Amino acid sequence: MAMELEKIIRAADHTLLHVDSTWDEIRGILDDAKKYGTASACIPAAYCKEAAEYVQGSVPITIVIGFPNGYDTTAAKVFEAKDAIANGASEIDMVINVGWVKNGWYDRVLEEIRKVKEACGDHILKVIIECCLLTKEEKIRMCEIVTESGADYIKTSTGFSTGGATFDDVKLLREHVGPNVKVKAAGGISTLEDAQKFLDLGADRLGTSRIIKLVKQMK
Amino acid sequence: MAMELEKIIRAADHTLLHVDSTWDEIRGILDDAKKYGTASACIPAAYCKEAAEYVQGSVPITIVIGFPNGYDTTAAKVFEAKDAIANGASEIDMVINVGWVKNGWYDRVLEEIRKVKEACGDHILKVIIECCLLTKEEKIRMCEIVTESGADYIKTSTGFSTGGATFDDVKLLREHVGPNVKVKAAGGISTLEDAQKFLDLGADRLGTSRIIKLVKQMK
Repeated sequence: MAMELEKIIRAADHTLLHVDSTWDEIRGILDDAKKYGTASACIPAAYCKEAAEYVQGSVPITIVIGFPNGYDTTAAKVFEAKDAIANGASEIDMVINVGWVKNGWYDRVLEEIRKVKEACGDHILKVIIECCLLTKEEKIRMCEIVTESGADYIKTSTGFSTGGATFDDVKLLREHVGPNVKVKAAGGISTLEDAQKFLDLGADRLGTSRIIKLVKQMK
Repeated sequence: MAMELEKIIRAADHTLLHVDSTWDEIRGILDDAKKYGTASACIPAAYCKEAAEYVQGSVPITIVIGFPNGYDTTAAKVFEAKDAIANGASEIDMVINVGWVKNGWYDRVLEEIRKVKEACGDHILKVIIECCLLTKEEKIRMCEIVTESGADYIKTSTGFSTGGATFDDVKLLREHVGPNVKVKAAGGISTLEDAQKFLDLGADRLGTSRIIKLVKQMK
């Protein structure tokens, strides 16, 4: 199990996105991300600058944009991505416009992801499609669009909607994205066994607030 | 009751902010806002431009920014406000940074509201303080800050957190804001009787998705 546990930790975006998160709590997340060696710490944009100064490059910082509702304008999402990177973010997790998907406005959805990716440059972009609100057909279509967009990851969930990551969704996304796109499972991952199963099903990253707590309890 | 009903309708920001709202649904909101004469229609930023073209000035459009989590950067909120106004928004509803309140960083909270108000110019700015996450002391402090900031309204809730408008909160806010600040009750207003009570307690606006449905059922 030890080697697997390491793998889980290294795949984790250690996350704290509560609306009322304090700087002390965020600092705790950053300390743990560094201590355990998670993939990144995922925190609110308004703490990015302080966080980057605090970790001095020792922990990659993931910032969420258009989050969690995804219906900000494309211009706002592009601004947020540039702003976050200027403040020291290494990775950007954006939410798609789900209403546009429901309208069948896939051209706009693609164009938006492309523009945000352009703003991100070499920084990793993860695209949250909020699986719990999509039909199977819409999820497959989004796999194709994310693959076409040049983004680096497709991500299941914000953790703020009606449901989080499911095994079925991770399997489906892994099946339908191209080889250039990785999968991030996020939202509600509550045990190390589930974390392992998400990795076994093809997830490369895990968005989670709980995994490090569980690891601490084990030790 | 007829005159009171008119008053309720004229105070309503007729709202649709679901993550997956379609353009057809938004158009329905705009049509009803026009037909019944609500204060405004409150819709996602990504639909602002289409909405403004569709209503051609017949309905004021309210756009939410930093919504609903409030932890975007000040720069992003300022950008979003300008972007929304450029797209035809008449009014802006912003969410404060609740984490900053919890840190006691009230200077930043005030500075942020001031900068967004500056970006809004003569357009109405409503400041959502997300009452359900604040202590009584924090709510009172936010009344003072919103009064000092030059914003036009204090607003109880986003409708996306653990609770919506309460009678106690509206009373408290009305008591503690200055005479230049109005009160908007929002989130979970489910009957016309409650709507009337919020107005009686000193609310000037009601953020609601249900009032027009109830009015339709009556007619």
